[in-house]
Amino acid sequence: MSPLKIHYPNGQPYHYNNGNSIHPQKEQSSNYSNRGMSLEKEINLTNKQYLTDNIAVIHKKPTPIQVVKVDYPKREAAKITEAYYRRSSTTDYNGVYKGYYLDFEAKETKNKTSFPLNNFHEHQIKHMKQSTEHGGICFTILRFATLDEIYLLHADFLFKWWDQQFEEKGRKSIPLSAIKKENFLIEYGFNPRIPYLKIVDQLIENIK
Amino acid sequence: MSPLKIHYPNGQPYHYNNGNSIHPQKEQSSNYSNRGMSLEKEINLTNKQYLTDNIAVIHKKPTPIQVVKVDYPKREAAKITEAYYRRSSTTDYNGVYKGYYLDFEAKETKNKTSFPLNNFHEHQIKHMKQSTEHGGICFTILRFATLDEIYLLHADFLFKWWDQQFEEKGRKSIPLSAIKKENFLIEYGFNPRIPYLKIVDQLIENIK
Repeated sequence: MSPLKIHYPNGQPYHYNNGNSIHPQKEQSSNYSNRGMSLEKEINLTNKQYLTDNIAVIHKKPTPIQVVKVDYPKREAAKITEAYYRRSSTTDYNGVYKGYYLDFEAKETKNKTSFPLNNFHEHQIKHMKQSTEHGGICFTILRFATLDEIYLLHADFLFKWWDQQFEEKGRKSIPLSAIKKENFLIEYGFNPRIPYLKIVDQLIENIK
Repeated sequence: MSPLKIHYPNGQPYHYNNGNSIHPQKEQSSNYSNRGMSLEKEINLTNKQYLTDNIAVIHKKPTPIQVVKVDYPKREAAKITEAYYRRSSTTDYNGVYKGYYLDFEAKETKNKTSFPLNNFHEHQIKHMKQSTEHGGICFTILRFATLDEIYLLHADFLFKWWDQQFEEKGRKSIPLSAIKKENFLIEYGFNPRIPYLKIVDQLIENIK
């Protein structure tokens, strides 16, 4: 979770009118930033909006849970009384957009200059490599929470950085400068909040 | 669950050699039928095989569970002590094959002459309609447990039957005869056990 954070364009403080801006339309370009909401929640809202607008069908997968004990009380819903979190063998999000299979992961860091690769698990990278091989479009939505910047990292870029860490003198993190250079910044929107499909459109253009 | 059931080609009983056939290759076409395993388990094994053979990346989604209470014992894994099953808003299976987004549900019935439509939920049909609209290939793998026959029902066929039930004199089930006429029987295999992608290949041919 990152704290409430407001952008100040041109260094000027953002004026609230008792908490309600009287010109909510005007600030659209730079002020719909993350207001303390988790990246996951924002992406879920984004996907819901894409579904409502009939643009794409993308869902977060449920967290895998191993159920050990269940009570079946009369006239009530089954109650799970012992269960454990399991590790997923895939990424968190997938779905269909313009006939393409999309598959992605969402990650956040508080670092300001690089993204530590240990935020990923081996099996997530493996899953994205497999999905890419079969024609899926894979990527990561990455937020630098402190900077409040969101990037869409194409899977090929991620694979390159993931693989190099095992080489001699390999880096254990991706420098922000490399991310900026080779990937797309996602500008916050009003609704959807994180319009990542605009960037996916550019990836699709590159495939064609 | 359906009981252990063995096919008898030409009316001849199937001879075991102390439970181990000495010619396991020969009976491949008709004898790898369902041996008491749930359809879900068989499809999971099938998907695992497809993944191992680098043919497709298809996974079952975890069951959605709402976690209410969690204990965090020292030096031990977090233990969920109160949770409830939630209804999924999608189908159970999805993934990527030959660049196509696949999305499907697996269903079983003990009926012998028709498949009751109340085995589906409205939201599953809605999800498949949405996914189809965006270029996904959607279907249902349907087992008549008593007959030990498995069919792949293309989504368009299912939508047609789903929608007609709300019309005057609409049927509440799909007759097996209609299923046989307009859909594909999936022959049991050894490995994968339920080679449904063979049928998907035919669906893809029809799209082209």
